Amino acid sequence: MFTLDPRLHADTFVLGRFPLSLLLLMNDSTYPWLILVPQREGMREIFELAPADQQQLLGESCHLAATLATLLRPDKLNIAALGNVVPQLHLHHVARFRSDPAWPAPVWGKSPAVPYRRAEIEAFRERLIPLLADFTPAGAD
Amino acid sequence: MFTLDPRLHADTFVLGRFPLSLLLLMNDSTYPWLILVPQREGMREIFELAPADQQQLLGESCHLAATLATLLRPDKLNIAALGNVVPQLHLHHVARFRSDPAWPAPVWGKSPAVPYRRAEIEAFRERLIPLLADFTPAGAD
Repeated sequence: MFTLDPRLHADTFVLGRFPLSLLLLMNDSTYPWLILVPQREGMREIFELAPADQQQLLGESCHLAATLATLLRPDKLNIAALGNVVPQLHLHHVARFRSDPAWPAPVWGKSPAVPYRRAEIEAFRERLIPLLADFTPAGAD
Repeated sequence: MFTLDPRLHADTFVLGRFPLSLLLLMNDSTYPWLILVPQREGMREIFELAPADQQQLLGESCHLAATLATLLRPDKLNIAALGNVVPQLHLHHVARFRSDPAWPAPVWGKSPAVPYRRAEIEAFRERLIPLLADFTPAGAD
C-alpha cells in the first residue's frame, strides 16, 4: 500500500501517473518543476528499488526530461533525488533558464514558492499531458 | 574522443573509472562527494545518452550509492545531475549527515570547499576502492 508523503502532497498537484511513478507539479510557478514518486512503500534511495523498478524509473525520468526539453527548450535540466527534508524517494525534474531567479544555483531554498493560479496549472497540464506516453492523467480512472 | 571538462578536472581527483564513467572525488572534505562522468563526448543530459549507456550509468550510480551507504552509513544520499555551471553530463553523489554544515539544504554553494590533505584522500581511496566492482583505479592501467 503506497501513500504519498503528506508534505509532498501539500506542496504539489498530482498530474497523474506513469506505470511506476506519480507525476507531481510543484506548486511554485517560478520554475517548471515536476516530481516523480515511485509508488513503492518505504523507499528512500534509488538503489533500494528492485532492479526492474530502477529501470522503469530511469525510463520514466528520461521520457519526462526529453518531453520537458522538447516542450520548454530550457537551458538545462536539473534532475535530483535529495530527500533530506522528505525522505520518501522522489526525483525532481526542474527546467532551468538563464533568466530564472536562481540561475546558476540550484532552486532549493532560493526564493519563496509563488503558487500557481488555477488557469496556469490547467494551461500547463494541457500542453504537457498529451506529450506523455504510458500516462494516466489524474481523474481519468 | 572524451575529454573531461577542465573545471571538473580542476575541482576533483580522478579515482578511476567504471566501464562507462569516470569516478571523481570532489576536493571538498566537508562532505563525502563523488561524481560520475560518462565518458561520452557532448552529452549534457541523461536522456541524451544511448539507452544502453543510460542503463549502464544507472547501474554504476546504484552500485556507487549502495557502496557509499554501506561504507559511511549516511542519513541520506543526494544524487543529482545539475550542470548549470558545467554542462558536461556529470552525476553528483553526496553522502549527507544531519551533522554536516549544510543539512538539510543541498550542498551546492553553501560553504567554501575545504581541500583534502593528501593522506585523507589516500585513506578514503583505500576504504572505497576495494568495495567497487568493475572498477579500474587511476594509475592501474
